[in-house]
Amino acid sequence: MVRQDRRPGYEDLLAAHGRIQPHVHRTPVMTSHYFDERVGARIYFKCENFQKVGAFKARGACNAVLSLSEEEATGGVLTHSSGNHAQALAYAAGIRGIPAYVVMPETAPQVKADAVRGYGAQIRFCEPTLEARERHSREWVAETGARFVHPYDDWSIIAGQSTAALELLDEIPDLDAILTPVGGGGLLAGTALACVLGPGHARAFGAEPENADDAARSLRMGEIQPSIHPRTIADGLLTSLGLRNFEVLKDEVRSIFTVSEEEILTAMHLVWQRMKILIEPSSAVPVAVLLSGRFDGPAARIGVILSGGNVDPRQTP
Amino acid sequence: MVRQDRRPGYEDLLAAHGRIQPHVHRTPVMTSHYFDERVGARIYFKCENFQKVGAFKARGACNAVLSLSEEEATGGVLTHSSGNHAQALAYAAGIRGIPAYVVMPETAPQVKADAVRGYGAQIRFCEPTLEARERHSREWVAETGARFVHPYDDWSIIAGQSTAALELLDEIPDLDAILTPVGGGGLLAGTALACVLGPGHARAFGAEPENADDAARSLRMGEIQPSIHPRTIADGLLTSLGLRNFEVLKDEVRSIFTVSEEEILTAMHLVWQRMKILIEPSSAVPVAVLLSGRFDGPAARIGVILSGGNVDPRQTP
Repeated sequence: MVRQDRRPGYEDLLAAHGRIQPHVHRTPVMTSHYFDERVGARIYFKCENFQKVGAFKARGACNAVLSLSEEEATGGVLTHSSGNHAQALAYAAGIRGIPAYVVMPETAPQVKADAVRGYGAQIRFCEPTLEARERHSREWVAETGARFVHPYDDWSIIAGQSTAALELLDEIPDLDAILTPVGGGGLLAGTALACVLGPGHARAFGAEPENADDAARSLRMGEIQPSIHPRTIADGLLTSLGLRNFEVLKDEVRSIFTVSEEEILTAMHLVWQRMKILIEPSSAVPVAVLLSGRFDGPAARIGVILSGGNVDPRQTP
Repeated sequence: MVRQDRRPGYEDLLAAHGRIQPHVHRTPVMTSHYFDERVGARIYFKCENFQKVGAFKARGACNAVLSLSEEEATGGVLTHSSGNHAQALAYAAGIRGIPAYVVMPETAPQVKADAVRGYGAQIRFCEPTLEARERHSREWVAETGARFVHPYDDWSIIAGQSTAALELLDEIPDLDAILTPVGGGGLLAGTALACVLGPGHARAFGAEPENADDAARSLRMGEIQPSIHPRTIADGLLTSLGLRNFEVLKDEVRSIFTVSEEEILTAMHLVWQRMKILIEPSSAVPVAVLLSGRFDGPAARIGVILSGGNVDPRQTP
């Protein structure tokens, strides 16, 4: 097993799938008469909210950790994150039996810290700035010899995230399009590679909050635009694009559609109410795009990756 | 097709399944590592929250309506209910292309009335007493020639509700027990018949709120005890047992376990959080029984029927 150090080909995606399959769920694909009617197309929802740790992030983290050589793995793995990637990396390290270290902003909610600890990771808290997170990470790597695993700007992470689309295309081969949310771009880049390299004709499209539209702007401008003061309920989509992620998006993704905060909330509540499944706000972003009528891609059979379900519905507007 | 006018045999249950199959979902069976660990058994959740109209009631109503002769069906069907049965009957009547009439207490929430109208039924509102509901029903039946369909004390309804357990046992044949909530007893009676008449060795058990424990008391006393001033968040479980339902329960159900309001809420929130699916409070009652450690039935492989998902999580304590 060797760490993915270049843009993955189709065989790399398949290898990632084989590698992680024993440790992640093959999540179900759901349909809903209500959403089909509203959108005027057949919609296939890939339910990564049912994934291990409650989000697709388990896929990338497992692939990254299981791809390490014995030597690379001995010191454990480390990341800085307050979100689903932290839990996912802790989970993956537990599978491999190596230590996991997570640098978290001291402002992170108690439940998130508890969840990460529940998977057996050690936590260090720091001031809630990128500078502090990076400095603490470097120091802790130096102390432990742990390997830093970036949440999205990493080819093995991208290959891992592609496996949700691989499974969806395996089940519904004649999809025309797959929509995913975009934060750092791991899920969208992986999905785009699965679409372009695989046998079908599906194309990948992105969905982003208007209030965190750096990926849409980056794609239009042809170079990465930073995410400045993002203010969105879709807390998984705050980060700027990664270099590797943008490289794939630039080549393989035609459009990223944006939606308002109100559209995101409405879409999330409709999925709860009509499908009886819990999705987090980030997952609702592609659903909101479809409901908005703004999606202009090929529209007969559309896949949507519901990226995660880590939300407390009683504490959401 | 003939209305079921006697206690159904196994062939009647299978016939009901064949009759309704084109019109209801074969709902998925989910498992959860978390609940298996907590309970110390393998738990199989039959997800009727994903059923048409959001609850198992679609099964009974479809069987009742599709079992009517042409002559019986012409005048349409009528019921009094503010809950899932009203929506289910309206849905079933729509399939058959006959009118549906629903008498509702004027205190019923607007959303419930809207949902029933959405399925094409006509509504008459009355004072929120059983006497008023029954009087208005009689009068409306006299006007329209509609056939009254009781929500649970009806063999064709019971046969219809049995089909959730039939599917569960078809998928997991070696279950030891199936737990269901108990209100009027339609789901539990149907489940008990499926267990006893079918090929496996599973036995059915009931789960009830302490604050609406009339079925547990009825089983202990050997005769139906009325549900007096039930005060529970499990709003599907307020009614007293039906005669036919009790007849089956007395013969085929050994125990009905009770849980507190707090246990019900905790169980509901845990299912939301851990399984990422929305269930209504009534569905959480059997889960609460398992978490309480009070269940003393055969416990290696346990089925639970999650009866419905009609809940607004933002408006729940």
